Amino acid sequence: MQHRPGSKQRVEVWAVDGGQARRRADQVVTEEPMELRLLAGRAKRTVAITMRTPGNDFELTAGFLFGEGVLGSRDQIQQISYCVDPDVDAEQQYNIVQVTLRGGVLPDLAPLERHFYTTSACGICGRASLDALHTRGYTPLAAGLQVTPELLAGLPEKLRAAQGVFEATGGLHAAALFDARGATIGLREDVGRHNALDKLIGWAFLEGRLPLRDHIVMVSGRASYELVQKSLVAGVPIFCAVSAPSSLAVDLAREFGMTLVGFLRGARFNVYAGAERVSMSLARS
Amino acid sequence: MQHRPGSKQRVEVWAVDGGQARRRADQVVTEEPMELRLLAGRAKRTVAITMRTPGNDFELTAGFLFGEGVLGSRDQIQQISYCVDPDVDAEQQYNIVQVTLRGGVLPDLAPLERHFYTTSACGICGRASLDALHTRGYTPLAAGLQVTPELLAGLPEKLRAAQGVFEATGGLHAAALFDARGATIGLREDVGRHNALDKLIGWAFLEGRLPLRDHIVMVSGRASYELVQKSLVAGVPIFCAVSAPSSLAVDLAREFGMTLVGFLRGARFNVYAGAERVSMSLARS
Repeated sequence: MQHRPGSKQRVEVWAVDGGQARRRADQVVTEEPMELRLLAGRAKRTVAITMRTPGNDFELTAGFLFGEGVLGSRDQIQQISYCVDPDVDAEQQYNIVQVTLRGGVLPDLAPLERHFYTTSACGICGRASLDALHTRGYTPLAAGLQVTPELLAGLPEKLRAAQGVFEATGGLHAAALFDARGATIGLREDVGRHNALDKLIGWAFLEGRLPLRDHIVMVSGRASYELVQKSLVAGVPIFCAVSAPSSLAVDLAREFGMTLVGFLRGARFNVYAGAERVSMSLARS
Repeated sequence: MQHRPGSKQRVEVWAVDGGQARRRADQVVTEEPMELRLLAGRAKRTVAITMRTPGNDFELTAGFLFGEGVLGSRDQIQQISYCVDPDVDAEQQYNIVQVTLRGGVLPDLAPLERHFYTTSACGICGRASLDALHTRGYTPLAAGLQVTPELLAGLPEKLRAAQGVFEATGGLHAAALFDARGATIGLREDVGRHNALDKLIGWAFLEGRLPLRDHIVMVSGRASYELVQKSLVAGVPIFCAVSAPSSLAVDLAREFGMTLVGFLRGARFNVYAGAERVSMSLARS
């Protein structure tokens, strides 16, 4: 029988308080490596190995391949499965995900190697990273979605309410998807911040829900360039973070017409880009 | 004149409070890609591209190469410099770091590709990741260092006191080094959690201070496998995190005799591994 790893594990710890130690049980979030293999015809290639929290592995796989530009449509996928090679130990089979593609030819994997940070024209810098996205064909997001500050102010509480494993372990990043009225559509968790968003977007990809027009993404941590980029690729017009954005995340949001909200913890927050989607009134004085 | 990127940048934001918006200046942490090139004789190879906060770039480079097992001694390095190719734009020269090695032959770069998560013997899983470290020659850390709970309880405040950029932007991870008496030896910050630790360990590497026996490392976030692994490679006997550890971080610390402290925010904390280095008294009842 196969052992399928859970998303949390029990460990014995010494709980210390003022120098006094007590032995007790604690729960920690599971972290295990996952290997991602692409199969097409007779070709087979390992394209990534990442540490992740087991669970929603197929979504993680699909979201990663889509977000990195390797796959553009779910129709390219014939099957996603765990590795069942007889020479792989049973308990490791849940750490190897293989994606069988239709067609028989592996897609261009160059995007994974270049990481999109560079262009041949001008080397490596934040500007080049943005230019590379234009080259890949991404265009500014359409206007349309309009939200109130009250709607945004209510999202952190909804994100917390939907977080299950974090309650027990305190060890997980979360990414949540909301619709235009602020209803929770989905939430994914992982030890890795990118993984949580990949799982969320991978779910939408596999469900045929992309692009995510009229949706809001919120993450439990900071807004880095990569998180905002993954959301842009998925067509998300409003990106919110509990903590601070980076300079390049702000540049990216401004360049592609995305609304970027930071320090969202309730009625007070900052809008770093795309303020036209938030129906605010100007404070007097 | 060259433009050297700073670690933070000024941006204009809409500060919203209860639906009322006010335009004001804010500071965000800089995020820019950095390319790492190795040079040896006529050989030249890009080994990594990473998003990072500019500053301490040479330490980041050295710490990364050491932590990943590509370099073992600072004597292997002839020079670390920014790229000065005339065909690279001036403002991008600070985003390309090149390491010129003595000897004339590039080192084995296989460790970077395998990421150490796998062994040919048994595939991919947490257990294999630990076995791979044994294969690389790492042995359990020696006993010796002994600290009091009071000393540990004082570290979070010292870490905060040493954090400069975070104050202004709220956007940085930190990694701090303390000696056996709890004195702050150094602190590094970055948008990337691994980068902050790479900078810290890279500094010690370049200063010839490795292994970091009798030292304590503390990080501002969670304790992941990779952070604990980097500390093990640097010989650090006590690793502390403000937040939760992952399952594999706990396994790694236990396997290699490292003390792992989590949720360290003052007098209350958890010891997940290596409790023998902390002089605790057993709570009665």
